[in-house]
Amino acid sequence: MCIKHTIQMTNKTTAQAIENRTMLTDLYQFTMNAAYFDNNKNEKATFDLFIRKLPRDWGYFIANGIEDAVDYATNIRFDEKDINYLGSQNLFKKDFLNYKKDFKFTGDIYAVKEGTPITANAPLMRVTAPRMEAQFLETILLNTANFQTMIASKANRVVNAAYPASVSDYGLRRAQDQDAAMKGARATYIAGCVGTSNVRAGMEYGIPIKGTHAHSFVKSFPTELEAFKAYVKTFPDNAILLIDTYDTLNGAGNAAIVAKELEKAGHRLLGVRIDSEDLAMRSRQVRQIFDNVDLNYLKIFGTNDLNEYKIEDLKSRSAKIDGYGVGTEMITAKPTAAIPGVYKLAEDEDGPKIKLSADKRSFPGKKQVYRIIEKGFYAYDILALEEEEIFGTPLLEKVVENGKRTRERRSLDETRAYCLNEVSKLPEHLRQVHVMKPYELRISPGLESLVTNLTEKYSHGVLAI
Amino acid sequence: MCIKHTIQMTNKTTAQAIENRTMLTDLYQFTMNAAYFDNNKNEKATFDLFIRKLPRDWGYFIANGIEDAVDYATNIRFDEKDINYLGSQNLFKKDFLNYKKDFKFTGDIYAVKEGTPITANAPLMRVTAPRMEAQFLETILLNTANFQTMIASKANRVVNAAYPASVSDYGLRRAQDQDAAMKGARATYIAGCVGTSNVRAGMEYGIPIKGTHAHSFVKSFPTELEAFKAYVKTFPDNAILLIDTYDTLNGAGNAAIVAKELEKAGHRLLGVRIDSEDLAMRSRQVRQIFDNVDLNYLKIFGTNDLNEYKIEDLKSRSAKIDGYGVGTEMITAKPTAAIPGVYKLAEDEDGPKIKLSADKRSFPGKKQVYRIIEKGFYAYDILALEEEEIFGTPLLEKVVENGKRTRERRSLDETRAYCLNEVSKLPEHLRQVHVMKPYELRISPGLESLVTNLTEKYSHGVLAI
Repeated sequence: MCIKHTIQMTNKTTAQAIENRTMLTDLYQFTMNAAYFDNNKNEKATFDLFIRKLPRDWGYFIANGIEDAVDYATNIRFDEKDINYLGSQNLFKKDFLNYKKDFKFTGDIYAVKEGTPITANAPLMRVTAPRMEAQFLETILLNTANFQTMIASKANRVVNAAYPASVSDYGLRRAQDQDAAMKGARATYIAGCVGTSNVRAGMEYGIPIKGTHAHSFVKSFPTELEAFKAYVKTFPDNAILLIDTYDTLNGAGNAAIVAKELEKAGHRLLGVRIDSEDLAMRSRQVRQIFDNVDLNYLKIFGTNDLNEYKIEDLKSRSAKIDGYGVGTEMITAKPTAAIPGVYKLAEDEDGPKIKLSADKRSFPGKKQVYRIIEKGFYAYDILALEEEEIFGTPLLEKVVENGKRTRERRSLDETRAYCLNEVSKLPEHLRQVHVMKPYELRISPGLESLVTNLTEKYSHGVLAI
Repeated sequence: MCIKHTIQMTNKTTAQAIENRTMLTDLYQFTMNAAYFDNNKNEKATFDLFIRKLPRDWGYFIANGIEDAVDYATNIRFDEKDINYLGSQNLFKKDFLNYKKDFKFTGDIYAVKEGTPITANAPLMRVTAPRMEAQFLETILLNTANFQTMIASKANRVVNAAYPASVSDYGLRRAQDQDAAMKGARATYIAGCVGTSNVRAGMEYGIPIKGTHAHSFVKSFPTELEAFKAYVKTFPDNAILLIDTYDTLNGAGNAAIVAKELEKAGHRLLGVRIDSEDLAMRSRQVRQIFDNVDLNYLKIFGTNDLNEYKIEDLKSRSAKIDGYGVGTEMITAKPTAAIPGVYKLAEDEDGPKIKLSADKRSFPGKKQVYRIIEKGFYAYDILALEEEEIFGTPLLEKVVENGKRTRERRSLDETRAYCLNEVSKLPEHLRQVHVMKPYELRISPGLESLVTNLTEKYSHGVLAI
């Protein structure tokens, strides 16, 4: 770690305080730490963070939450009130609590770049540190990477389904509280959404904010036309009118009247939104109404409990929709709701560790993931031991050395551009809504033979599951 | 609002700052506000927050998030940086931004007590305020009440299924980021869980914290027995040993050895945890092993991707489990992931408002919910107009008057005790895992005839949906 980096980090920390999530952990991280402490068990260990399985129909994940996870890990520290709270539990001895006062992360972290498409069982992060530190990171890394990776992946599916129509995040009211709405909005933007309705996410992350008006606005005026006129009075150049409060085709007619009046005054209506009924049929009819009166420039936006499957169906039925607002199912990844990210011991002072049970397999040793390109597209990845020579692009890069970041956070725009470029290099069939065969992870010869050796070794005695 | 209340509130605010979530809203709340502002449309309006539909098999919701929602609503205020951000969007005029500088909530809120069992379409909250204020609360109230109500309801299902075995929240690593883990832990505790693995939730809310150790702990020692001995050395009086890392029955034997050694030293092992295979069969076998050697006091805990259905099945197959740790599916309410809470205009200066579409019905007017008791159990609720006389217990109580709380937050323990007592008064069939007929909401004669009148009125012209 060079001095220049240290200085950069100090500046950054001053400018923008990193959140301390140290106490956001499972109690068993403390009880295990206490037992390791009592038993002087703190040699270096390596853990992998990976996701066991892709949800049905998914071709890949979009690795996300990596930057936050690294921030949380490098910012582990206990305040006095934390130590006092732990002390009040009648669980921990004084010497352990004293030790915890100065506890921090001093190890190394390798991670894939945020926004990287990655498949099941390939590590997103690899942590090497004294066992107590490496173990302690488990919960906070999982809480961070599981959720953000899930939402970026789900959003990328929705974006792919809608293309070339745009997708915006409208999920705030159904998100699982504030953080989910915030980090979720960020994840959907990285994965290709063009904006969010979430004003706070716009302010904090610089994501473009999007919005129209509600049915209640229309119902607050005697007639729909009066409501529309009232709205464009305030927003003469960028209004999107919700046209289905009473009757969608009638609403389109009213929107056309308002659009023509705006034209005369030197302004332009932006478009309309439809939030009910059959969006395919209605959008075609509304498009026709507008085109018939030379309002080709009016955009049509669609909302109504959408997801990637419904959008694919709308597209197949020639919906004339320029942009989708997607809420509940994108911001919660419903019905998936959680992906099976885990954090497993891969190696310690006794050598590589393996888990052999059929459904909960893990791979031993310090590993790297290599991406193989064929005919300009990403063909598959190889999971290999670090010491093996593989001709491919290594995905895990060092981001933390001796407890310090070796580079600054990438910006949101850089991450988004990187993600979309990477996704474009995946074979077309992986970007479909129904993926039969997900992105492939092959096992290197070296890793394969280590697995075989360890399997034989453990199979002679009791199975290590 | 009496002076005494104002003083109490001031003290409370000083002691414990209420979080400002004002900017956590949809852009359209601002655009609608701006249009109302330009059109001088700010007479009083009343909105209801209710949940359209119970998920399949659910008998009722547990209303939750009410206290937070009230805190957020009564703490609406814009900082200078918020106004600057809004100004930078090229959307809003200067006079509107100036108006927003002093914007706050000055209206009244009625709400059911946090922890109240309630059914679909019955308002959890009712807001009456100048239209711009009442409308503005929509997003933050929904984000808060939707999630917390969902998790409390889901957790109560799990708790009911497990009874008399206990349930603890182990969901942190799969929760949808930090807030979901925190507010989720709180919700599960209110709904009957006995503790959480989430240390921060323990510290902030005073929830008992629970935990054992991981498979990686066992794998960090040469043998399981050595791992167990190392662990109880640190926790001689309250250790729970995870016995399925290699072979569950063998693990139970090792736990028994350790328990006997602890007995000789004047200590006691608390119990064991099983995290794989068939928990029903394994727990019976392990119980037998312990009982055979007079270790009847050892408790058996079960974990492994559990939910209310799996727990009901385990119980039906005579599992010998004293406590369950439930993670992913309880903290995310998977596969439900989101419940359809909405916030609808019920009345404004032009009178009661109705929504008539079949699947998106809303009830007009200022309403109250009355609970009817028969033979000591809650029989059904009646949704009635406020001015009607109904013989039942009104559930909506005034919590905010002229923008100020009329009472302090209830404590967590009070809310939990209230919730569990209320649930115990529901008929047995509603507390099952599979509920055919959810808790009933009847419509009062007065409300019924208002609906009929409005329906006739609107059906002659265009339908108001």
